[in-house]
Amino acid sequence: MDELTAWLVLAHAPGLHAGTLAPLLTRFDSASSLVNADPAALHEAAVPPALIRYLRQGAFQLSTDLHWLDHQQHHLVCWGTPAYPMLLAELRDAPIAIYVRGDPELLCMPQLAIVGSRNPTPAGRENARGFASHLGRNGLTITSGLAIGIDAASHEGALPTAGRTIAVCGAGLDISYPKANAALADEIAEHGALISEFPIGTPPLRAHFPRRNRIIAGLSLGTLVVEAALQSGSLITARLAADSGREVFAIPGSIHNPMSHGCHQLIRQGAALVENAADIFAQLRPLAGALARDVARPLSDGEATDATRISAAPLDNEYKILLDALGFEPAGVDLLVERTGFRAGEVASMLSILELENRVASYPGGLYVRSGPEGTK
Amino acid sequence: MDELTAWLVLAHAPGLHAGTLAPLLTRFDSASSLVNADPAALHEAAVPPALIRYLRQGAFQLSTDLHWLDHQQHHLVCWGTPAYPMLLAELRDAPIAIYVRGDPELLCMPQLAIVGSRNPTPAGRENARGFASHLGRNGLTITSGLAIGIDAASHEGALPTAGRTIAVCGAGLDISYPKANAALADEIAEHGALISEFPIGTPPLRAHFPRRNRIIAGLSLGTLVVEAALQSGSLITARLAADSGREVFAIPGSIHNPMSHGCHQLIRQGAALVENAADIFAQLRPLAGALARDVARPLSDGEATDATRISAAPLDNEYKILLDALGFEPAGVDLLVERTGFRAGEVASMLSILELENRVASYPGGLYVRSGPEGTK
Repeated sequence: MDELTAWLVLAHAPGLHAGTLAPLLTRFDSASSLVNADPAALHEAAVPPALIRYLRQGAFQLSTDLHWLDHQQHHLVCWGTPAYPMLLAELRDAPIAIYVRGDPELLCMPQLAIVGSRNPTPAGRENARGFASHLGRNGLTITSGLAIGIDAASHEGALPTAGRTIAVCGAGLDISYPKANAALADEIAEHGALISEFPIGTPPLRAHFPRRNRIIAGLSLGTLVVEAALQSGSLITARLAADSGREVFAIPGSIHNPMSHGCHQLIRQGAALVENAADIFAQLRPLAGALARDVARPLSDGEATDATRISAAPLDNEYKILLDALGFEPAGVDLLVERTGFRAGEVASMLSILELENRVASYPGGLYVRSGPEGTK
Repeated sequence: MDELTAWLVLAHAPGLHAGTLAPLLTRFDSASSLVNADPAALHEAAVPPALIRYLRQGAFQLSTDLHWLDHQQHHLVCWGTPAYPMLLAELRDAPIAIYVRGDPELLCMPQLAIVGSRNPTPAGRENARGFASHLGRNGLTITSGLAIGIDAASHEGALPTAGRTIAVCGAGLDISYPKANAALADEIAEHGALISEFPIGTPPLRAHFPRRNRIIAGLSLGTLVVEAALQSGSLITARLAADSGREVFAIPGSIHNPMSHGCHQLIRQGAALVENAADIFAQLRPLAGALARDVARPLSDGEATDATRISAAPLDNEYKILLDALGFEPAGVDLLVERTGFRAGEVASMLSILELENRVASYPGGLYVRSGPEGTK
């Protein structure tokens, strides 16, 4: 069995996520040697019994996936490869593989998630489009869920911009859902990326959407909620973002607009109140720094975290360490992790910020170089 | 010189406030013995030289005040008397005396300040009127500054309610300012109270309004900002409230409404985001408890304050101590301070809350009794 087929086998394994897979890949070196290993070796390696049973039954339905992947625009981005986005890899339950229709390199770009109600007010829709357009022009990739309402408006705002847009789907990428956004999905595939962790042919089950939401939050430096009712799925995305240590942003609105109440709840719980794009950029940089600081200087009881986020100045140290570690030859995240002692997700997050500031440039293959006056360009 | 005249002399003394006056009153027993004391006694008592000079020059212009006070509806509420509001007395620079046109007993009622822009949106005006009306029907007295815009709408909303309304003026009470609110001022005098620290005849100078604002904030358990631009005077009132340990409330709004930006700034700085009146009542009770807790169990570095405010349950102790101390005979704040060891302002604040909950009733002369099923009624 070749490596691609082995990855598809693993991507189809029920309930398997990167947290379980990572130590097994280290042990077996590749997906194919894991999938092809004999049962005794699997037992010896303490592979979970459910996964052993799955691998032994052998009747994998991969032809639909393989056929779909046989198209120039279709890709599978596998865990542990340079193309796999480092911020997403931080999640304990990161997906094994990501199906991509469009440009897979977009996954490693610095992203902001914009999410919200399926039934927004006209003003909410305009805010989503406006923020996505402005942030996109400033180089942020806008990630959302392709739902009607705020999601669609966010994708539309970001599509024509430099940052472009990623739509994370709750079904297989051969399935057009929701139908109302079929034309938008085609445009996103053309100029951005449609992605999913669900194998080709998977229907858009209700249970898929919370899982889809964790990917939206996990890919992004932060999540902006534009309009959301209480009990909205967007609040779950925001909670997942906060749980992963990412920033949560919320736009306030009239107290008489039920679609503002979810945003107000988030603000009460500590989300950054956002009036304009500058508010978002102001928070993103300290966020990346605060992540790095966890490692560089462990906090007691986390009591300095807020202070860290308020003042950007003391963060420069970690960025300087990273830029020094980067030097003037292209280097990947793994090498930078080795050189700095920062965690991979932190390095990726800081690189994203430095890229936004044009202080580093990214090359194909997950490599980064310093740019600007002091750089090699 | 009689006591009333002596108080007027002190009320006219430039820059004199209760923080300076309090130890002198303790030393001299009454305002008249202070004002009538000979220079040697004043020097011996370490009376500030400026005050000695003022008292010695002797040409006090009090006839306008005395003439104004010769009216059934006009009153002077002097520092250190039972009629002087305890929450206001907490301010280091509390006024020596308060001129009142209307009902002076209103000053000791539990109050919420509602303030905001002179140029609100129609929705802001409706919110002010709606909150004032609802809170007033639930027994809170609404205090504001008689300005056009949010102030006027707040007074109007509260006027017909049980809680009624207090207007704090930046000029002498014989001067109608602003003219546009002259009819409203008359109505407030009839059903509530117009008050000022400025002697009769004082014009509405620009410098008076920050001083007026500290009284609005100082009288109130909390301050609600409805709509305010950045740089608005309402933000000063809110800061004064926060500095006195009172709660600050702000109503969010559209990010495209400049009159919401001041409220958003307050929320970012820690003001409670308010969607409805219940949000305000939810915060007021823990506030009063947290004040008491400062005394009952000193906090280290204030780190438990937030936790205290989130959960109301552990606060019941202080309220129980106070209710036990109150017993079933009428008692004043001083006696309760003696019995509980709480500070006067804390006792006053907690009594206000208990009064809102109908667990105590206030009697003339600053006395309180327990009421309700367990009480004497």
